[in-house]
Amino acid sequence: QPGFDREDHPHRRRNLLTGRWVLVSPHRAKRPWQGEQAKAAPASGAAYEAGCYLCPTNTRTNGEANPDYPATFVFDNDFPALLTDTPDPASGSSDGDPVFAIAPARGTARVICYSPDHSRTLPQMSVAAVRALVDTWAAQSAELGERFANVQIFENKGEMMGCSSPHPHGQIWASDFVPMEVADEEREQAAWLSARGRPLLDEVAEREIAAAERVVAMNDHWLAVVPFWAAWPFEVLLIARTAAARLQDLDDAARDALAVILGQVTRAYDALFSTSFPYSMGWHQAPGGSDALAAWRLHAHFYPPLLRSASVRKFMVGFEMFAETQRDLTPETAAARLRAALAETENA
Amino acid sequence: QPGFDREDHPHRRRNLLTGRWVLVSPHRAKRPWQGEQAKAAPASGAAYEAGCYLCPTNTRTNGEANPDYPATFVFDNDFPALLTDTPDPASGSSDGDPVFAIAPARGTARVICYSPDHSRTLPQMSVAAVRALVDTWAAQSAELGERFANVQIFENKGEMMGCSSPHPHGQIWASDFVPMEVADEEREQAAWLSARGRPLLDEVAEREIAAAERVVAMNDHWLAVVPFWAAWPFEVLLIARTAAARLQDLDDAARDALAVILGQVTRAYDALFSTSFPYSMGWHQAPGGSDALAAWRLHAHFYPPLLRSASVRKFMVGFEMFAETQRDLTPETAAARLRAALAETENA
Ligand SMILES: O=P(O)(O)O[C@H]1O[C@H](CO)[C@@H](O)[C@H](O)[C@H]1O
Ligand SMILES: O=P(O)(O)O[C@H]1O[C@H](CO)[C@@H](O)[C@H](O)[C@H]1O
Repeated sequence: QPGFDREDHPHRRRNLLTGRWVLVSPHRAKRPWQGEQAKAAPASGAAYEAGCYLCPTNTRTNGEANPDYPATFVFDNDFPALLTDTPDPASGSSDGDPVFAIAPARGTARVICYSPDHSRTLPQMSVAAVRALVDTWAAQSAELGERFANVQIFENKGEMMGCSSPHPHGQIWASDFVPMEVADEEREQAAWLSARGRPLLDEVAEREIAAAERVVAMNDHWLAVVPFWAAWPFEVLLIARTAAARLQDLDDAARDALAVILGQVTRAYDALFSTSFPYSMGWHQAPGGSDALAAWRLHAHFYPPLLRSASVRKFMVGFEMFAETQRDLTPETAAARLRAALAETENA
Repeated sequence: QPGFDREDHPHRRRNLLTGRWVLVSPHRAKRPWQGEQAKAAPASGAAYEAGCYLCPTNTRTNGEANPDYPATFVFDNDFPALLTDTPDPASGSSDGDPVFAIAPARGTARVICYSPDHSRTLPQMSVAAVRALVDTWAAQSAELGERFANVQIFENKGEMMGCSSPHPHGQIWASDFVPMEVADEEREQAAWLSARGRPLLDEVAEREIAAAERVVAMNDHWLAVVPFWAAWPFEVLLIARTAAARLQDLDDAARDALAVILGQVTRAYDALFSTSFPYSMGWHQAPGGSDALAAWRLHAHFYPPLLRSASVRKFMVGFEMFAETQRDLTPETAAARLRAALAETENA
């Protein structure tokens, strides 16, 4: 009887950070595609666009003019999903109702322009410019962390990911509640620490480095892997290898190393399908009042939608929505392809 | 001090079926949109397409010819994500490893052509034709339920939802494991029954009917509502009002009534933005070996991506991926618009 082969046989893998399983169907990558073909993102040329509401000196929809900023620029989101001064729903009609359960949500939302250059995405920025972004993330996280339970920093890159402006930028949504995903990760990390005496991502990093096959890039401070339980085809998990629970915990050396590995991961992405690779990227860090600080390890997730080319994406629909996340190629294959893409950019 | 207003103030609502919270930011619907504009789906004209691999008498990619079927037609998916004869990963290398946790996954996948007519989507089919589809669902659920722990029936409609063929069809993925979403719903429904002595969706249906504001359509056997905790802008939950835990439990009257309400919901969708409305639709029913059968109530979810027009969708990216699902208009507003759209089709 022939044995199990990870590259041929469907199986499930467990995401240790969320506690949820993922269905892996590697043989599915062979199916033909008759569905939607996205058009490739147009290459943006000019460093300054008069019509862009994020470029220096331009006026935004609310009438404010941007300063002539030299590096990063942070401003309050003109259409924030969270507001600081929302009244409590307890004053509404559904208070204490178990069927129609409602809870307060307050917070603030900011936009971070990565640099004045309209045309330079993260993989095209200099290490020094990315380092300035890292410092901005850390400063924002520290400042907003004083007032809010959770500081969610993320980037939606590309029209395919709902990005509403081509000027390279990210967002911060800080909230007075701990959102579901962060709460899940805190629960799983805390349980791991108390069961095994070590932080979850510490052990994951050690094992991934030893296994080597899913590693995309690494340095003394950071590990970039396609995690064993990756959901998106070319998902990457970027783990701090030093004991940092939040962005502001990173020292100078770790920040420099982060600027380097962010360039590597995103250039590998761009090289993979010769396109400006769309993704959502987000940081996960310990919430403000966390009582599981020692269990937390700072990390970022990259969730890119592309599957087979610059125009064929993975759809998380149907079975994925109603039953379970499913992927069509193994994380091992994805990592090998990203390593090859990275080598290509480094030899170029 | 002004009170809380659901239509203005951000808040969170709890999805009772999954136990997860959703962030509602109603004021966000006011923001402008500079991002991706999808092209409207082209209207399909001909009832038969020579190049379609789902039309009667045509040959599929694997060389088999479809019969000249008169109503529904079910066949094995040529590119199934699940296979019946996969060896056990216990024979692989990750057995018992807590860091790289792996589990077996076996099953089968089928395609259901809704009717021979290439051009007629569900909202355009006759009640008799939809009733034939309901009978096919029930028969497939009963047959596959004998052999598999879970029978997941769903439809991805439209290119935007990753549908790879325009011929109206759905899918069945039956598995020897209970997928995450179904396990979550079973856990929450079982907990509700033991805490309150009634099935969760029984109580939800009763309260939604009394509240009326989120109801889209109803009859003696079914209730279609934008649930209090809806995630997608125009999400609909279709709840069986009789004690059915699975599709095969439905009697003749409930099946007829289902055919009617399915037409109403999907015609309301098409009328809303004057387009063939994309969605993923999926049934949730008790898994095969369920020990919480009395807690289960058969229901279907419609998850449609459109937000503001036939070309502007909601993106579940960034904050939604890393933190928490977020919506930009209230379920109450969405339901009112769907009711108005339905009235329009019924007066036409
Ligand atoms: O099976 P299809 O229609 O080729 O594929 C579609 O539905 C599947 C099940 O929901 C998804 O996994 C795919 O991403 C989607 O493109
Ligand atoms: O805030 P933006 O860029 O207008 O909007 C984008 O990011 C948000 C946060 O991830 C999402 O809720 C929106 O669906 C998406 O289009």
